[in-house]
Amino acid sequence: MPVVITLLTDFGTRDSYVGELRGVLLTRAPGAVLADIGHDIPPGDIRSAAYVLGRYRDAFPPGTVHLAVVDPGVGSPRAALALRSEGRYFVGPDNGVFTPVLDAAEKVVRLAVPEGASVTFHGRDVFAPAAAALATGAPLDRLGEEPLAPPVRLPGPRLERRGRETIGEVIYVDRFGTLVTNLPSDTEPGIIEIAGARAPRRRTFSDVAPGELVAFVGSGGTVEIALRDGSAAARLSAGVGHEVRAVAPSDTRPR
Amino acid sequence: MPVVITLLTDFGTRDSYVGELRGVLLTRAPGAVLADIGHDIPPGDIRSAAYVLGRYRDAFPPGTVHLAVVDPGVGSPRAALALRSEGRYFVGPDNGVFTPVLDAAEKVVRLAVPEGASVTFHGRDVFAPAAAALATGAPLDRLGEEPLAPPVRLPGPRLERRGRETIGEVIYVDRFGTLVTNLPSDTEPGIIEIAGARAPRRRTFSDVAPGELVAFVGSGGTVEIALRDGSAAARLSAGVGHEVRAVAPSDTRPR
Amino acid sequence: MPVVITLLTDFGTRDSYVGELRGVLLTRAPGAVLADIGHDIPPGDIRSAAYVLGRYRDAFPPGTVHLAVVDPGVGSPRAALALRSEGRYFVGPDNGVFTPVLDAAEKVVRLAVPEGASVTFHGRDVFAPAAAALATGAPLDRLGEEPLAPPVRLPGPRLERRGRETIGEVIYVDRFGTLVTNLPSDTEPGIIEIAGARAPRRRTFSDVAPGELVAFVGSGGTVEIALRDGSAAARLSAGVGHEVRAVAPSDTRPR
Repeated sequence: MPVVITLLTDFGTRDSYVGELRGVLLTRAPGAVLADIGHDIPPGDIRSAAYVLGRYRDAFPPGTVHLAVVDPGVGSPRAALALRSEGRYFVGPDNGVFTPVLDAAEKVVRLAVPEGASVTFHGRDVFAPAAAALATGAPLDRLGEEPLAPPVRLPGPRLERRGRETIGEVIYVDRFGTLVTNLPSDTEPGIIEIAGARAPRRRTFSDVAPGELVAFVGSGGTVEIALRDGSAAARLSAGVGHEVRAVAPSDTRPR
Repeated sequence: MPVVITLLTDFGTRDSYVGELRGVLLTRAPGAVLADIGHDIPPGDIRSAAYVLGRYRDAFPPGTVHLAVVDPGVGSPRAALALRSEGRYFVGPDNGVFTPVLDAAEKVVRLAVPEGASVTFHGRDVFAPAAAALATGAPLDRLGEEPLAPPVRLPGPRLERRGRETIGEVIYVDRFGTLVTNLPSDTEPGIIEIAGARAPRRRTFSDVAPGELVAFVGSGGTVEIALRDGSAAARLSAGVGHEVRAVAPSDTRPR
Repeated sequence: MPVVITLLTDFGTRDSYVGELRGVLLTRAPGAVLADIGHDIPPGDIRSAAYVLGRYRDAFPPGTVHLAVVDPGVGSPRAALALRSEGRYFVGPDNGVFTPVLDAAEKVVRLAVPEGASVTFHGRDVFAPAAAALATGAPLDRLGEEPLAPPVRLPGPRLERRGRETIGEVIYVDRFGTLVTNLPSDTEPGIIEIAGARAPRRRTFSDVAPGELVAFVGSGGTVEIALRDGSAAARLSAGVGHEVRAVAPSDTRPR
């Protein structure tokens, strides 16, 4: 069974950067299967990359090498990491992108930057070679030394329970304009308040009429707020960090 | 020869959704070759998806599994389908996306929705597992039961011949702004009238000067209307459903 | 070791075109590994395609077949080419896209256009079949005849040294708005002047404060001008062809 290397970047698909990555990977790990996650993470948006990575990582088989290069600090002294967590490998910059897998990390190493590596393209010259090495069987501890400091973690979003009310945040907005929150699936199934609007909890978006807001447990396992046949983000002018409140139907206050 | 699984979706490439699909497919069908058609079908645009599917399906070898997930009705009672047509397999929602292959379908089954499947992401939890099963040799009739109703078909576009005049419609607009019509290749090779403008029939777009409209038989086998070095759709403010008329040169009316 | 076929086009990812290419390739070269470079070259932008190709070509292993279809002249009498250069194969239109590899080309052939090929889609009907043939071992000289004329070359950008001053051009703008120039890496490491602004030469963009311009040797080996945490192209309203001047710090003129 060939080893899978996944690719998540903010490189876009107009330039040569993704091609250069693939070339390095296929030269050094010719038997590997390359699987794109996507290259359209907004430039430098580590938070989005971390959320996305938290979702796809487990869908791939054990042994998979997850390469994640969203690296606005390339060339600064931020560390380059490779780590193993729950049977998968992760390679990329130490900037918080690996937050979802750090708790379960079994081993973390700091990658050396090879002589002659481009200062601005560690994806090609540091991370891809490390990913290819892992895909071809190199042991993790052969790739680098103990990190000098614990890996960077992104601060967790706010999540607070007050009686029957739960207060959380929008943690991601997808291409359909659906607002993904950190409200857990067992949140009081009443009304979700956000940005002065209310979305009733239903099973899914087709349970309301077109043009109406609705909240439901999404495919990532938390509550999402959507607009049927439209963009909830645009309707509510809401985005990542916006407060959301789950309240029992009887608790909603008149406005 | 490894089995090919193609992927056509409206998921975009910013989110985790395509990555999750690929993870499920490569976990359950590790030997399969994944081939992206594209993930940029406009959200929920079943008609575009059906046109595109009608074009690439035969380019792939027999045995290919074509996964097509443009599924605005996910979570509603629309059926989930797998079918075989002209030696290829097709997996996706019963919403008309498979219209081009239904006439030749040899067998159609309704997929069961597994316990615990996400209500909003059948791509990951229903369709990808079925595609992987077919790619690894599971017989189609093992995947589901007889459908409760005949598969949904999109209404065909208008096509009418009146003497030497043929009246049809724009059925697709591509990224270059070329207007693909349903006028067959043997349509009277005179003038195409659309939106108050006229495009002369030529062999190809380089047969007219830059900035001029031209009609020719396109790579899909029907008449297309293009603007050399520009967008015919933008110039004519025309799109899917617009009427087109093929007339003999001598029949064109003065305007 | 399977042969890699890379794909560079301006087809975008909404339509069926990339899917049709992949179908032809996987039908005719079932063991080949398809590696996308990207499909988002601006429509018809041969110059961008040539720059991008010049960057990724060597990252892939010898024997790789590089398919590059940015072909605004499809259907005109421009030739269809296949060539070998530095151990890799290149297949695409004779319009300058192969400029970076022509000096080292060992052999060039003019591909025949098969009976029945679409006039507007040589990617599918001429270039993909040739790429698949090369990937499955067909010798280059079996694919076509001697070209009728030397392959088209894009004019090189201006590069002039006057004492300690070097004058060059922007040759590419990437998705981050970074301006790639043709100033070589050994250019006087002083100040880069462009569009009435000055960018100091540093090691990388994280050596200046957010919002400041900076020049450095980029990952392609030439000087680039970037805006930290922003787009230099947008800030300077600059693009391909813009003049750039490398001057010693003491030579900068007051403005």
